[in-house]
Amino acid sequence: LEGHAVRTPLLEAEFLGRALGARLLIKAEPLQRTGSFKFRGAYNAISQLSPAALKAGVVGFSSGNHGQAVAAAARLCGAPAVIVMPKDAPAIKIGGTRRQGAEIVFYERGRDDREAIGARLAAERGLSLIRPYDDRQVIAGQGTIGLELVAQLGVAPDLVVVPAGGGGLIAGIGLALGAVAPTAKLYAAEPAGWHDHALSLSTGERRAAPEPSRATFCDSLLALEPGLLTFALNRRQMAGGLIVEDAEVARAMASAFRDLKLVIEPGGAVALAAVLSGKLDCRNKTVVVVASGGNVDASVYAKAMEAAPYG
Amino acid sequence: LEGHAVRTPLLEAEFLGRALGARLLIKAEPLQRTGSFKFRGAYNAISQLSPAALKAGVVGFSSGNHGQAVAAAARLCGAPAVIVMPKDAPAIKIGGTRRQGAEIVFYERGRDDREAIGARLAAERGLSLIRPYDDRQVIAGQGTIGLELVAQLGVAPDLVVVPAGGGGLIAGIGLALGAVAPTAKLYAAEPAGWHDHALSLSTGERRAAPEPSRATFCDSLLALEPGLLTFALNRRQMAGGLIVEDAEVARAMASAFRDLKLVIEPGGAVALAAVLSGKLDCRNKTVVVVASGGNVDASVYAKAMEAAPYG
Repeated sequence: LEGHAVRTPLLEAEFLGRALGARLLIKAEPLQRTGSFKFRGAYNAISQLSPAALKAGVVGFSSGNHGQAVAAAARLCGAPAVIVMPKDAPAIKIGGTRRQGAEIVFYERGRDDREAIGARLAAERGLSLIRPYDDRQVIAGQGTIGLELVAQLGVAPDLVVVPAGGGGLIAGIGLALGAVAPTAKLYAAEPAGWHDHALSLSTGERRAAPEPSRATFCDSLLALEPGLLTFALNRRQMAGGLIVEDAEVARAMASAFRDLKLVIEPGGAVALAAVLSGKLDCRNKTVVVVASGGNVDASVYAKAMEAAPYG
Repeated sequence: LEGHAVRTPLLEAEFLGRALGARLLIKAEPLQRTGSFKFRGAYNAISQLSPAALKAGVVGFSSGNHGQAVAAAARLCGAPAVIVMPKDAPAIKIGGTRRQGAEIVFYERGRDDREAIGARLAAERGLSLIRPYDDRQVIAGQGTIGLELVAQLGVAPDLVVVPAGGGGLIAGIGLALGAVAPTAKLYAAEPAGWHDHALSLSTGERRAAPEPSRATFCDSLLALEPGLLTFALNRRQMAGGLIVEDAEVARAMASAFRDLKLVIEPGGAVALAAVLSGKLDCRNKTVVVVASGGNVDASVYAKAMEAAPYG
């Protein structure tokens, strides 16, 4: 990934950390290419395809961030890309995918089976399917975040808190921390109702999101259950799952606006929300929070700021 | 400044650059301590005071960003700080100054003479006055941005575009580029009506802002004329001045939101606005834009996003 992905900065959150009695750092993946960490995994997977496979093209299904990432990585590798996205994806994610030159196929969330659509397109057109999380190359790509944050910090962090959707990001970071900072405790953060990882980690087996009818604006974290491959890793390497409400996420987005000048999308802000709302005891700890993406529509962003005025 | 100021990232603005036919990079000073470049100059000046002067304390007058910077630098150096600020400063700047533990003295913009208030406080209480731009240590501190951006880029940029208020930032960057990248052409950007630098640079002598009654939301760039010391430097080292309208600034802020995930305040976005609105021919050039700060109230930010919907 070196020279292709951005080595995103690890931002010192001085004021927010002081309020927690902790040293708090933010790994700023909104500053990654295409505005989320997803570029890392997508590029790692696509750049290893054969010349013939690249020529035939790739297909990805995605709530939006993985789609943009596959489209961008494919463009850089000279491959055509088809992205299967939900109709209700944020406009910024649809626009971002389109301007990378990808073809978009829309599906209806809750009605259509996006995996089946992706598999059918792959078979019909001879495309390589780039899975959003349950893939070894993708997990390895996301893991570079773990290597980078430990190198940038210079020591092992005490706590690392990371958003979880399908679990590819936490799986990759967990592998990396196991290698370079095995004393660090790794937590997943999820929106309430969609906390399949919290549930699965506490019971030790893959469990579905307990309340997937519950509304949340964390559009990037609506996976219904942990991935097979990702959970096989995560059940061994995670310390637990943290659950946040949308109001806490909005406050975290507003805090990042005020104190970090970093735009974070709802799903990207759940880990920061978990830490700022006190779901973990951070006192006297060095805490790294991963902000995983920043692709949010301006109207949603403005509403979050309004709901969470800073004092 | 090493170990005290943040070495802010130089962000590759891939999509925005492609649209201009240029390589475009953003030096992201909103990610600096206190949310603007001003910390560099303030810390450089304050950290060189004698122990007795630090004990007595410092005073700064400021539209807001220099105030926060002086307050933060003073806190780090163990000095008490008094900040003279306009009553109508953005709430985020007043709050940011206050939580650094500084005492705030308000003045009425357009009625009171803030320099006189600062000088009186300095005399009465034995405080060291930290000027916002017309000061050698302050200019030298801001100049570290020029050194960093050339080191981060690895080559000399063709064009460097920088917001100008009193001219301390451009003066410092000009000195640095003169030393490490003398072929780079340096431009100042200002809001229309308040373009005292554009006017002064084209006539070769210090001229006042031609239309200071004109409303602009670029609150950090409302200096009435170039500084004495800064203009003595800038008249020799600047290639010219660029003038932007508020609507162009709002579009630049929205572009930074969408494509960079970086919060930029109005005054901090004038250089990006000048480049994106075509005030300079950037084709086939390597262009560095300094985003100088990100301290903007959420309501102003939301309005700018609304005025400049992205397509």
